[in-house]
Amino acid sequence: MNPERIEVRVGDTASVVWVGRGALEDPRRFLESPSGRWLLVSSRNARAVAARLREALAADLLLDLEIEDSEERKTLDTVRSIVDRALEAGVRRDDAFVAVGGGVVTDLVGFAAAIVLRGIAWNAVPTTVAAMADAAIGGKTGVDHALGKNLLGAFHLPRSILVDPSASATLPARDLASGLVEAFKGAWIADEDLSTQAESRLDRLLSRDEDALTDLLAGAVRVKAAIVSSDPFDRGSRRLLNFGHTLGHAFEAAGGYGHLRHGEAVAWGIAAALSISAERAGLSASDSARIRSVLARLGPFPEPVRARETLEPLLVRDKKATSRGLAGVLLEALGRARVEESIPVEEWLAAAESVTIG
Amino acid sequence: MNPERIEVRVGDTASVVWVGRGALEDPRRFLESPSGRWLLVSSRNARAVAARLREALAADLLLDLEIEDSEERKTLDTVRSIVDRALEAGVRRDDAFVAVGGGVVTDLVGFAAAIVLRGIAWNAVPTTVAAMADAAIGGKTGVDHALGKNLLGAFHLPRSILVDPSASATLPARDLASGLVEAFKGAWIADEDLSTQAESRLDRLLSRDEDALTDLLAGAVRVKAAIVSSDPFDRGSRRLLNFGHTLGHAFEAAGGYGHLRHGEAVAWGIAAALSISAERAGLSASDSARIRSVLARLGPFPEPVRARETLEPLLVRDKKATSRGLAGVLLEALGRARVEESIPVEEWLAAAESVTIG
Repeated sequence: MNPERIEVRVGDTASVVWVGRGALEDPRRFLESPSGRWLLVSSRNARAVAARLREALAADLLLDLEIEDSEERKTLDTVRSIVDRALEAGVRRDDAFVAVGGGVVTDLVGFAAAIVLRGIAWNAVPTTVAAMADAAIGGKTGVDHALGKNLLGAFHLPRSILVDPSASATLPARDLASGLVEAFKGAWIADEDLSTQAESRLDRLLSRDEDALTDLLAGAVRVKAAIVSSDPFDRGSRRLLNFGHTLGHAFEAAGGYGHLRHGEAVAWGIAAALSISAERAGLSASDSARIRSVLARLGPFPEPVRARETLEPLLVRDKKATSRGLAGVLLEALGRARVEESIPVEEWLAAAESVTIG
Repeated sequence: MNPERIEVRVGDTASVVWVGRGALEDPRRFLESPSGRWLLVSSRNARAVAARLREALAADLLLDLEIEDSEERKTLDTVRSIVDRALEAGVRRDDAFVAVGGGVVTDLVGFAAAIVLRGIAWNAVPTTVAAMADAAIGGKTGVDHALGKNLLGAFHLPRSILVDPSASATLPARDLASGLVEAFKGAWIADEDLSTQAESRLDRLLSRDEDALTDLLAGAVRVKAAIVSSDPFDRGSRRLLNFGHTLGHAFEAAGGYGHLRHGEAVAWGIAAALSISAERAGLSASDSARIRSVLARLGPFPEPVRARETLEPLLVRDKKATSRGLAGVLLEALGRARVEESIPVEEWLAAAESVTIG
């Protein structure tokens, strides 16, 4: 069985994403290490996949470290502990990390790889649908800070990313649904056909049908790969990937991160952005209804915190706020998004207050 | 007075180095910040220069932080404290750091700039001759780790570098001489004419004649800029800049860092590399004598630790050691260097044991 090969190109560096069943059957075919030596860092929640990689790489495994895959551990201290262990193990410039787990693990290991010996190679083996669709692609790595999420980090592309839907077999249902929000987001901003196909297969997706997951994930990865390749450093079109994220990040922070999954907060953020898109970008009622219907079937999601006094300071200090104000991503139609540079905070707050899904 | 403009180009990013008297007279002409806002981080040892910049940037100064310029403080903890202060000050993606001090400060601030908000702009105002000739140019940033120097870091080019020899006016004589070793190194690996001129002006250089310093520094910066631009990520010709550094790093570590200045350790490393160059690369006795004579007049330097049992483990775990062995930079002639991939550790140890200067 041959996984699909999708390339992400940034300047003179590139990632190759392998999507499909079989990517994990012979990992050495797809992972890359210049020296042939490996530093395996895996999530406690991904032991079955980690075991498969351990077996495949055993003879050349320099480090085998298990870490926690929780947002509270996504800190500079955890990066330091990974880096300490790598240096103690004698890591050299031509060795490569392999990160196995959800977005927290790929963010942490990618950042560690970015700074150890001023940057060595790494590979990502995402085991959550959210990480497969989004977090592991595109080279953004990083950690949280007391003052906000993802405030420290680096752009550092993994050499290879293995997206094998079978790795998500034991994922809790809530995480599956939350991850599917991110995968659908890729379709909604750039690929109407992909959305149409995935909408018609929503039951199969929710029952983890591997063919349906492979098709949606491959589509979402193609969307992200095309956007990232055209805008590696997040200055222009890459911002389209933030559809639903402006309010999503605020909802997530307002609830204290434990309350909503990232994808759930993004689902609420997308629903709110649909209202703004209708007013400002001419999004039709029928396109909007299609998206709301998918979100409703992926949900129900826990209620977000809607209070203005909580959301307003979070929006104002958004990392994406520049001297010019707070930009947002709007849909003109299903499959076509654009960035609007300065949407007043008041408009975001009104949309948050009245947002509904379905 | 117009400083000379020298560009360092790496992929789609570039640094501009301004060399000469006058660069500090109107710093706003030369420093770059997309937002026009500045985060000033300066060394306790560079208060006069920091005061000049503070005055010039005062109206738009977001942060004004003084740190220690000592190797012991070149740690991830210091980077973290810089990053904390920047985030507390409300740093945005379009703001820029200005680092004022020696190589420790430019390494720390450059690394902080590389990771805060996944990378913001920074500028370097080196105040030591070593940093002017070498450390601030080329985008290598980083910190030390318990297991070795510069084991963590990032490649992150400063937007602008102001090399104004007047900034070194209060530099202790020992640091001046040590910095001149790095400046001469640039001439020796790539520019015989520059070396000939600087040799003839050695007394003027040691008495801090600004014209003589400007010419040598501009020449050394041109050499480094050309090499870095052709090999941004340290895979090929950039390694030529490590002339004298293989043993130099080992001498430095063997003495516990407090013992030898970096440039002094490199001076001993260069002297040892001359012997290996004579044997392996055909370096003539007269070229070798010219270099030894300059080193002797810059010295005398404190004696290095030569014991094999101390140096051998340091050489073996050199960051530049790959699976293939330990590479070294050899001179074929004054102004012409090459990398030799695998020089046996035994040869390095023998050269270290018998090294003399002059």
